[in-house]
Amino acid sequence: MALESPAVLTIAGSDSGGGAGIQADLKTFTVHGCYGASVVTALTAQNTTGVQAVHAVPPDFVKQQMSSVLDDIDVRAIKTGMLFDAENTKAVVQMLKGYFDVKGRIPLVCDPVCVSTSGHVLLQPEALNTVIDELFPLSDLITPNKAEAELLLSQRHSPFQIASLDNMITAARRLKKLGAQAVLLKGGHFAVSLKEVADFNSEDVQVIRDGLLDENSNILRIHGRNGHDINSVVVDVLCAPDSRITLFTRPRLESTSTHGTGCTLSAALACQLARGTPLTEAVRLAAAYTHTGIETATPIGSGFGPLNHVHSITPRLIVPRTKTNPYPLTSSLIQSTRTIWREYVQHEFVVLLGKGTLPKENFLHFIKQDYLYLKYYARAYALLAAKSHAYAPILAATEVVFHIVRESSMHVGYCAKWGITEDELNSTPESPALTAYGAFLIDIGMQGDPMRLSVALAACLLGYGEVGLWLKEEARAPNSWIRWDDNPYLKWMEDYSGDEYQKAVKVGLETLESRAAADVPSLVRFAEWRDVWERCTRLEKGFWDMAMKLE
Amino acid sequence: MALESPAVLTIAGSDSGGGAGIQADLKTFTVHGCYGASVVTALTAQNTTGVQAVHAVPPDFVKQQMSSVLDDIDVRAIKTGMLFDAENTKAVVQMLKGYFDVKGRIPLVCDPVCVSTSGHVLLQPEALNTVIDELFPLSDLITPNKAEAELLLSQRHSPFQIASLDNMITAARRLKKLGAQAVLLKGGHFAVSLKEVADFNSEDVQVIRDGLLDENSNILRIHGRNGHDINSVVVDVLCAPDSRITLFTRPRLESTSTHGTGCTLSAALACQLARGTPLTEAVRLAAAYTHTGIETATPIGSGFGPLNHVHSITPRLIVPRTKTNPYPLTSSLIQSTRTIWREYVQHEFVVLLGKGTLPKENFLHFIKQDYLYLKYYARAYALLAAKSHAYAPILAATEVVFHIVRESSMHVGYCAKWGITEDELNSTPESPALTAYGAFLIDIGMQGDPMRLSVALAACLLGYGEVGLWLKEEARAPNSWIRWDDNPYLKWMEDYSGDEYQKAVKVGLETLESRAAADVPSLVRFAEWRDVWERCTRLEKGFWDMAMKLE
Repeated sequence: MALESPAVLTIAGSDSGGGAGIQADLKTFTVHGCYGASVVTALTAQNTTGVQAVHAVPPDFVKQQMSSVLDDIDVRAIKTGMLFDAENTKAVVQMLKGYFDVKGRIPLVCDPVCVSTSGHVLLQPEALNTVIDELFPLSDLITPNKAEAELLLSQRHSPFQIASLDNMITAARRLKKLGAQAVLLKGGHFAVSLKEVADFNSEDVQVIRDGLLDENSNILRIHGRNGHDINSVVVDVLCAPDSRITLFTRPRLESTSTHGTGCTLSAALACQLARGTPLTEAVRLAAAYTHTGIETATPIGSGFGPLNHVHSITPRLIVPRTKTNPYPLTSSLIQSTRTIWREYVQHEFVVLLGKGTLPKENFLHFIKQDYLYLKYYARAYALLAAKSHAYAPILAATEVVFHIVRESSMHVGYCAKWGITEDELNSTPESPALTAYGAFLIDIGMQGDPMRLSVALAACLLGYGEVGLWLKEEARAPNSWIRWDDNPYLKWMEDYSGDEYQKAVKVGLETLESRAAADVPSLVRFAEWRDVWERCTRLEKGFWDMAMKLE
Repeated sequence: MALESPAVLTIAGSDSGGGAGIQADLKTFTVHGCYGASVVTALTAQNTTGVQAVHAVPPDFVKQQMSSVLDDIDVRAIKTGMLFDAENTKAVVQMLKGYFDVKGRIPLVCDPVCVSTSGHVLLQPEALNTVIDELFPLSDLITPNKAEAELLLSQRHSPFQIASLDNMITAARRLKKLGAQAVLLKGGHFAVSLKEVADFNSEDVQVIRDGLLDENSNILRIHGRNGHDINSVVVDVLCAPDSRITLFTRPRLESTSTHGTGCTLSAALACQLARGTPLTEAVRLAAAYTHTGIETATPIGSGFGPLNHVHSITPRLIVPRTKTNPYPLTSSLIQSTRTIWREYVQHEFVVLLGKGTLPKENFLHFIKQDYLYLKYYARAYALLAAKSHAYAPILAATEVVFHIVRESSMHVGYCAKWGITEDELNSTPESPALTAYGAFLIDIGMQGDPMRLSVALAACLLGYGEVGLWLKEEARAPNSWIRWDDNPYLKWMEDYSGDEYQKAVKVGLETLESRAAADVPSLVRFAEWRDVWERCTRLEKGFWDMAMKLE
């Protein structure tokens, strides 16, 4: 998400309770992956039960905050919320005009906040004309609710009451004439029947039936009936720049978690417009985000609680690849199985091999079983190729099969030097430790997706690479415990620390990491991978236990 | 994340630029899944180049904000940042004492912000004694950086300069004696060599080598060497409540994206403590979050830019299951393939069948191919059982195999009525449309994980359920176009709209949705599921095209 983080600015009040104002805006920006800046017009001491006190910010300081942000940060959209009084409203308008004149226009969403849900006046009446006459003409979209729409229209026309869907459409059209490019009249305070909506479904009026489950979805509607009245809906009315009307319908919710709904919606709209989402789709997405925020909220405070702002994100366990952490998945796998991993890569077998004191019979038992293991390992890579969807991974897995088959013939030559014939190799019975490991790889390959199999295959590839590098690094130390040049197992150490094998290790690391970065695992998937990795690490350790015990 | 959203309060300054202060805190709280509330002590007009102006909030209004939050919201941890002047510091201390006396203590992290990175004084000198004498004793943890530690110690002792790791440990111990439960002395401004850290690795000093890739990780260290100096590290020193020292080491970063680092770290610490994470692990996690935030930041502004706060989250495409949207995965699948889904479930074949005017030969062609299709379908469910890891899904898939085999014998009986013998059924050649669909199911089953196969199998299960319910619903309308009672295909319509089949539909919906909710798909995985769903929907439409064309 970091790569596409447009900056969005909110100009609004601060809600100490965190449910509305710049707090709701910043939360919304953040979960939308946008970078949030904020200009505070007034501080409120506020919670879910109401507004206890307001501290207005001096107009010059509002201007100073706007300068600080706009002079330095490449803001891609702005929303205004509570402006509080005439002076601050004028200050905001003056700064916006100046900025737009110099830098050109950017999307501006104006939420004409006038009165809080709890009845507190959030825009002083004398500021209303400035909002209408000066701020609306700068706005791409204004987002009044029913009460605000009635107040705004009554300010310019005779008193206007909204009592039907028809009234809402009329109101949206009239509001647009006040000067904004577009109007979204919010219907959250207003129940409409599905039939009333259907009656408006004409060529002039587009209806977006979001979340209503009624288009070829009898199965969802009938099996999902859960006690809520599917005939009573909420309708938001959009009057677009071309004056066409779109109705956005959603199920009506009975909830007390509605504090900050308007702030959240306009903040989500600003995020969408900052990314260049077309207006109608922006409204659909922002309304859906807000709706789910209300419906998934858990109670906070004793009054009208805030929305759940974090329903649209999940934790990311594997961090992005960076310079200091280029292999975050592998690093997490190793760290989370630290003890067993160490028992594997620093196994007694490895230590004795490095010292050159490993008895020949243990090494021969190992090398014969390892020859048989490579058959399973080749088959598992062939299975990986069979499970892949694109030519590149099919080729990559197949190349590994080739390598393994070649490695097996090197085993044959290598074993010949120790007096073991190819017939003897092929007639060696499988040890239980080998069957367990080999069959487990094939089973994992049969069960799951290619990535899970790749993780299983990595424990061997990377572990032997680690053993090779460790022995080589240790051998370099002064007075090393490693016997290198005249070690009977020198070739084995050279093979696994050598360039060819380490090149395969690097390719394996890059493949795993690039796939995990392209499709970041959920906590559940990572747990599955970790489990497979740990099983394979144990099976690897078991393989060397087998060699030591000659089982 | 919604279910475990502890509320966390920040008491700090506002940074209009959004990189530090309550803005950084709220962003950090949000991505940690915590609910953020905020008390503003001072407003700053600030950006990445520095602090342009400060507007102090009156102490009474600070108190009023604290009352509003603490009287209403069940706060689980508090952090303090910039308190600005002596009056506000005293106001905060007084309110915290009062709250702790009445409600008991909750974790308090005090970030003793004194001077900004750009050199701006953020705590007036006369406030320093209040911080030390009154706020530290209330704090579970204080998090000074080098400059703040030197300032705090010099305030009480003779001037103290931190010039080595040894000095840092001494400073942390001395700072703890000022009254806080624990001290985290941050080492971000200070390069330490790995060797210097290794020398401190004694029984008295625990070292957490986070992100250093040096424990049995030669493969990561050597292959991941990317030009950064792995011997120069950053060390944070924790002096715990029992006075034991822990060193947290991380790679040193060269970055200008460091604005708000201290705010972010202390905010992340508050989140961890709010969840009850033990102190050492809380520090490790918070430091890792902050480190990755610096390293993955993209430049914003022309000065010291903010961290990337959103690296630890990914978007969640499938919303949580709610009352009004109980089947969000299925709903998304249907919505995202709307046109082809409609062409399938309202196919000409279905319409003619509903009218009772479908030619018998088309129906017979269909029913014979459908009999053969059920073999593939049963095999695919058997494969699903073979790929499942727990008894419950093994049983569920196997029960479906039983149902399908029973359904096939009903087909035999049903076909007999139309004069088709079982031999004729079994000797019917497969149409290409059938082979395509059946073999595709088996292929998907071989390739991927059980969930992908489940999505493939759902297109048939749910689609026929939709057809059945649609015909039945339409038949209920006055003057319906459906011929029901004397329709030659009545039994077919009754079967698919009937309780037994619809019970299977509901089980299928619940299974899909509960699995998707337990392991929410990434965008990539959802795209894979959507692709499989669309392919199967097309193949279903193709199946009825085949019946109409007698292919």
